[in-house]
Amino acid sequence: MNQAQNQTQLIALDWGTSSLRAYRLGADSSVLELRSLPWGVMKLPQVVLPKNFGVDETARFEFAFEEACGDWMRASPHAPVIAAGMVGSRQGWREAPYLSVPIAVDRIGSTLSTVHTRGGQILYIVPGLIENSALPNVMRGEETQVIGALSMLDFAKTPCHAEQQQDEILIGLPGSHSKWVQVRLQHQEKQSHIEHFHTFMTGEVYAALCEHTILGRSMQTGDVKGDGDAAFDRGVLVAQTPAGRAGVLSTIFSTRTLGLTGVLDGAAQREYLSGLLIGHEMAALQALLAQQGFQPARILLVGDAALCGRYSRALSAYGLDQVEIAVQATELGLWKLAMSAGLLVA
Amino acid sequence: MNQAQNQTQLIALDWGTSSLRAYRLGADSSVLELRSLPWGVMKLPQVVLPKNFGVDETARFEFAFEEACGDWMRASPHAPVIAAGMVGSRQGWREAPYLSVPIAVDRIGSTLSTVHTRGGQILYIVPGLIENSALPNVMRGEETQVIGALSMLDFAKTPCHAEQQQDEILIGLPGSHSKWVQVRLQHQEKQSHIEHFHTFMTGEVYAALCEHTILGRSMQTGDVKGDGDAAFDRGVLVAQTPAGRAGVLSTIFSTRTLGLTGVLDGAAQREYLSGLLIGHEMAALQALLAQQGFQPARILLVGDAALCGRYSRALSAYGLDQVEIAVQATELGLWKLAMSAGLLVA
Repeated sequence: MNQAQNQTQLIALDWGTSSLRAYRLGADSSVLELRSLPWGVMKLPQVVLPKNFGVDETARFEFAFEEACGDWMRASPHAPVIAAGMVGSRQGWREAPYLSVPIAVDRIGSTLSTVHTRGGQILYIVPGLIENSALPNVMRGEETQVIGALSMLDFAKTPCHAEQQQDEILIGLPGSHSKWVQVRLQHQEKQSHIEHFHTFMTGEVYAALCEHTILGRSMQTGDVKGDGDAAFDRGVLVAQTPAGRAGVLSTIFSTRTLGLTGVLDGAAQREYLSGLLIGHEMAALQALLAQQGFQPARILLVGDAALCGRYSRALSAYGLDQVEIAVQATELGLWKLAMSAGLLVA
Repeated sequence: MNQAQNQTQLIALDWGTSSLRAYRLGADSSVLELRSLPWGVMKLPQVVLPKNFGVDETARFEFAFEEACGDWMRASPHAPVIAAGMVGSRQGWREAPYLSVPIAVDRIGSTLSTVHTRGGQILYIVPGLIENSALPNVMRGEETQVIGALSMLDFAKTPCHAEQQQDEILIGLPGSHSKWVQVRLQHQEKQSHIEHFHTFMTGEVYAALCEHTILGRSMQTGDVKGDGDAAFDRGVLVAQTPAGRAGVLSTIFSTRTLGLTGVLDGAAQREYLSGLLIGHEMAALQALLAQQGFQPARILLVGDAALCGRYSRALSAYGLDQVEIAVQATELGLWKLAMSAGLLVA
């Protein structure tokens, strides 16, 4: 690689609750280097800090920031630095106020907050989004992934209703809290708008149920005897049966009773519960989309590959097909945001 | 109290997962003495046992049993001893196989299992119930409370459809796992049948969410500034709004976002989440009863008084009125079971 290709164009941070990932990006958003540190906003390093980091509560942010990319900044002092995620929350380094949905995607990059670090660097922080409906919804970090995923779409290729010149795209971000984001593409203006989004605490609820309720007691980790996919699929379908009308607070108990009656072994129970929760999420999502008359022409999934695989299976069981998996959405989103903020020369 | 009144007629144990309650019952099921021990089936005493308790896995059951009622048994060697709850589970002292629902209530007492203790005593154990539907349901201990609650009903007073000579009664047992039991009373035969029952893991899910997810982080214990009931009621209603269609995995996130947006303080969030989960339980229960064409003439609640109060409020928000709270259902149920097993002279 020659020197020009190796030149840092942007330092991009994905700084969430439990981890910090730093990307050194070169021309055309290529990833030159990646660092993963365990120092999320709620897990900052608990070390005795040298005095130059200061003594106030921001010292640990300064320290983590220096460790993540201090050498990159010194080597390329003109490269801008941008961050997305919980670093912009009230518990983060600097609160970057939420922007309200519906919103044009282009507008997000024009409203970055800034931190002036002790080292004299400006850190740009991406705002989160809020949907102030009867039950408000918020996201921080996922807006960046949505922007990254959208940038991968070839507008021309998107099937569209010719007379309308617009299309509905659903972007799913499975994880501890999965988000489902409804986007409308306007082909002529090459504009996209985030119209609604929904949050499901499926991943975090799954972990809490496995680790802290009676359901976990009879579970085993490790391989399922026989077919793990079958147990998962069995769980996925529950929400669409008459028994599923009892809702998730009731149906989860079947994880235990299908164990007691010898239908599911300890490892299969774990798969079954995963499928059951994701199935309830799908059934609810289907109902919400129908309620809003939203008919996605394409569905993009962003996230961990194995988890996206599970969600693809579940989506198709609920008649939501046309699923594509978008990779590297975070770094691409940060790149696009830096572009629209004018931090990078196109 | 004279000697006859103080005479032990029955020793009755409510032996669950986390605790053991021992009742010394006199004539007409009056409670002469009550002991509460922390020695549930999953929390047996971890002490070095004297040799006479044996060395096998039942030794700790023997020890807890002796501590709970050994002196009562020696003082009244002819009083029968009966137990209900998880003591009859696979993890208990002796497995008392489940009986299948639908079942005539009278039949339950005629199928007790027995343990012959080292002390030469017979311990009768009440079977649990199973409903082998698509998602099986099980109970252990609650069947005894149902029998106790039913025994308090004055058949003559129950409003009934004269031509049918029968009535539908709903019995709710809120707790870690709340149970809803559908009972049909046949007035002429003075018979009752348990037709269906449902389980909701509401209490255990609530505890896991408060203690082991992000929802707990912004919660505070202690008094709600302003009106705690208002926060609870606000939660109760969520499941019946359009936003409630998103289901419990999604709506619970509003506990956090209503905090972020300044609507609910830390103490109110706790109340709101409690109401929200119970409201989802009510909405599902309503749907299940409608699906089965079950129209309860009366609703009885059995359990902790404060929790029954919460459920009464929530039931009435979902149009389920006519709620009565039944007290002392456990000891009365054990008494009735001992009667129908022929252990007591009527």
